[in-house]
Amino acid sequence: MSNTIEQTVADIPRQQRTEVSEAVRTRWDSLTKPRGSLGLLEDEIVKLAEIQGNAMPRTGRRGIYTFCGDHGITEEGVSLYPSVVTREMVKNFGRGGAAINVLCRHLGIEPCIVDAGVSGPKLTGILDRRIGSGTANFLRGPAMSRAQALSSIEAGIEIARNAATRFDVVGLGEMGIGNTTSASALLCVFTGATPAEAAGRGAGLDDAGVQHKCRVLTAALAAHQVDPQDPLSVISAFGGFEIAMMAGLLLGAASCRLPVVLDGFVSGAAFLIARAFYSDIENHVFFAHHSAEHGHARLLGSVRSKPLLHLGMRLGEGTGAALAIGLLSSAADLYREMATFAEAAVSDVNGKESIK
Amino acid sequence: MSNTIEQTVADIPRQQRTEVSEAVRTRWDSLTKPRGSLGLLEDEIVKLAEIQGNAMPRTGRRGIYTFCGDHGITEEGVSLYPSVVTREMVKNFGRGGAAINVLCRHLGIEPCIVDAGVSGPKLTGILDRRIGSGTANFLRGPAMSRAQALSSIEAGIEIARNAATRFDVVGLGEMGIGNTTSASALLCVFTGATPAEAAGRGAGLDDAGVQHKCRVLTAALAAHQVDPQDPLSVISAFGGFEIAMMAGLLLGAASCRLPVVLDGFVSGAAFLIARAFYSDIENHVFFAHHSAEHGHARLLGSVRSKPLLHLGMRLGEGTGAALAIGLLSSAADLYREMATFAEAAVSDVNGKESIK
Repeated sequence: MSNTIEQTVADIPRQQRTEVSEAVRTRWDSLTKPRGSLGLLEDEIVKLAEIQGNAMPRTGRRGIYTFCGDHGITEEGVSLYPSVVTREMVKNFGRGGAAINVLCRHLGIEPCIVDAGVSGPKLTGILDRRIGSGTANFLRGPAMSRAQALSSIEAGIEIARNAATRFDVVGLGEMGIGNTTSASALLCVFTGATPAEAAGRGAGLDDAGVQHKCRVLTAALAAHQVDPQDPLSVISAFGGFEIAMMAGLLLGAASCRLPVVLDGFVSGAAFLIARAFYSDIENHVFFAHHSAEHGHARLLGSVRSKPLLHLGMRLGEGTGAALAIGLLSSAADLYREMATFAEAAVSDVNGKESIK
Repeated sequence: MSNTIEQTVADIPRQQRTEVSEAVRTRWDSLTKPRGSLGLLEDEIVKLAEIQGNAMPRTGRRGIYTFCGDHGITEEGVSLYPSVVTREMVKNFGRGGAAINVLCRHLGIEPCIVDAGVSGPKLTGILDRRIGSGTANFLRGPAMSRAQALSSIEAGIEIARNAATRFDVVGLGEMGIGNTTSASALLCVFTGATPAEAAGRGAGLDDAGVQHKCRVLTAALAAHQVDPQDPLSVISAFGGFEIAMMAGLLLGAASCRLPVVLDGFVSGAAFLIARAFYSDIENHVFFAHHSAEHGHARLLGSVRSKPLLHLGMRLGEGTGAALAIGLLSSAADLYREMATFAEAAVSDVNGKESIK
């Protein structure tokens, strides 16, 4: 581990601020509604307040970071779309035509597109944190060097520190043809899932395609005997640049009390890396949705948190995170603006005698 | 059945406009995302387009109707809160302090509060469609007369006709202390659920309270031998004014191609009434969320539609419908504004060879 990563992990606030949680629960119970009747929305505001260390949590300044990178493993035919689509979609982001742009426009979220390692020459109009021009084919060797793995994490930490000065909450998404194959490998390493449990359709493989992806994963996992206790070795083996950078962002954000909303399966793999560096990272993140990508159920089975949405989405880019940030913002609106029983002169029977 | 109800049901468009569905699916598949990757959001836009009869469905003008009424059955101690809370909450709506007000403000939805039969004198600043001053105690006799049941339905139809001139989509919610007991009785009559399957905690009953509610339901169901094929007799037996008015709104909205988003358990009971008048009403409505109220699972088990949200909410007022309208609007934004593969020059492999 580097000094930067060690220091970042050391800076993550350890204590759950139970006085903050209690203050939030007390306020929820004072508002004009049956106690607990906003369900998960109430719990999520408690968590948001704990992360921010503030019983009146803020969600007004919202960002989505979409990390983009290419994957050499696409040489093995593991994705329905050709690698060039990563680059084409980055240009689509720049013109505002992608799904994440539309959602950000309407939900008051600032989109931040990051080039973590898209193949080909540098792209303009995008945050340049390129670690390389796509990873190497991890069936034939390591996806990247250990130094590149470290640089990816450190770049993510630095982006998080900047994000914490600009936003109250951020979402995490990605674009990278082939990246569900890297994410599946990470799921196998960090949770003990089998390739069959981890490999899904990605952008739309048919059954034969999934079986092929599964065989590629099995061979690659046999070729790289990595130690899940050494996350840099795992990243080096399987990639990708954008996944490692998201893991760095998670650690950096936690150290700055910046809440992060994970998107789906691939950002979930970044969560697994971050958890290998810091076992309690889950206290600092939200799970936006239960993705339709096959391995996501297994990934969600390894956490206590409940995802906010179950819409069968599998688009990526941060689209699930954007919708979940919308819900979190609605929850925060309710928490801040609803009248209390006393203010509204409504009879309260929450834990006391009814005022008839 | 009255002439008004008969004519309204006759006016509901019977044909699913498959050309509209196909046009919507074709557009979804042309947008820069993996085919089908927006999951349920894609399906809901197809449904919205079918209801509106327009392949470019609109969601810009949004309303929530919150129907308020009181229930004589509260004399039997079936609710945690006293009846007066209905009236107090209506005043809270008027001052903008309730949960539904907060959500409507932030989600661009117009709140419309309707007095369907709140106990006590007339309220000001609220749409007056009072059928009575609360229903009668349905353990001791019918909740209302057959004429009142008919008036409730007809008032809902008239409100729907007005709503169709003002809104592209409306949500349906309610406020009425005791109304989960009426809704549970309706669930038993229309689906064959047992009182134990239908009775839940409402605003927060404990186990003993639920058992008592269940005994009240069992006795009331035995006392009123109603025919589910005669929905006016069922409404007359169990109420309530606000539930019947919501059922009327559902029929009227369907006849005007106005999509309606149901909230939770009580608006779901209104759906059961509407379905008794017109068996295909489900084609014209959305289910906002899976409520934490016990009987809602059984109710949802009787439909093909999937609810949009699973947040463990049980507040009512239309709060789940408001959040679901937010999601539907996001889906419509994506559908209207995303770039196509051709527009964005992104390689498309949806059903054809990839352009490498």
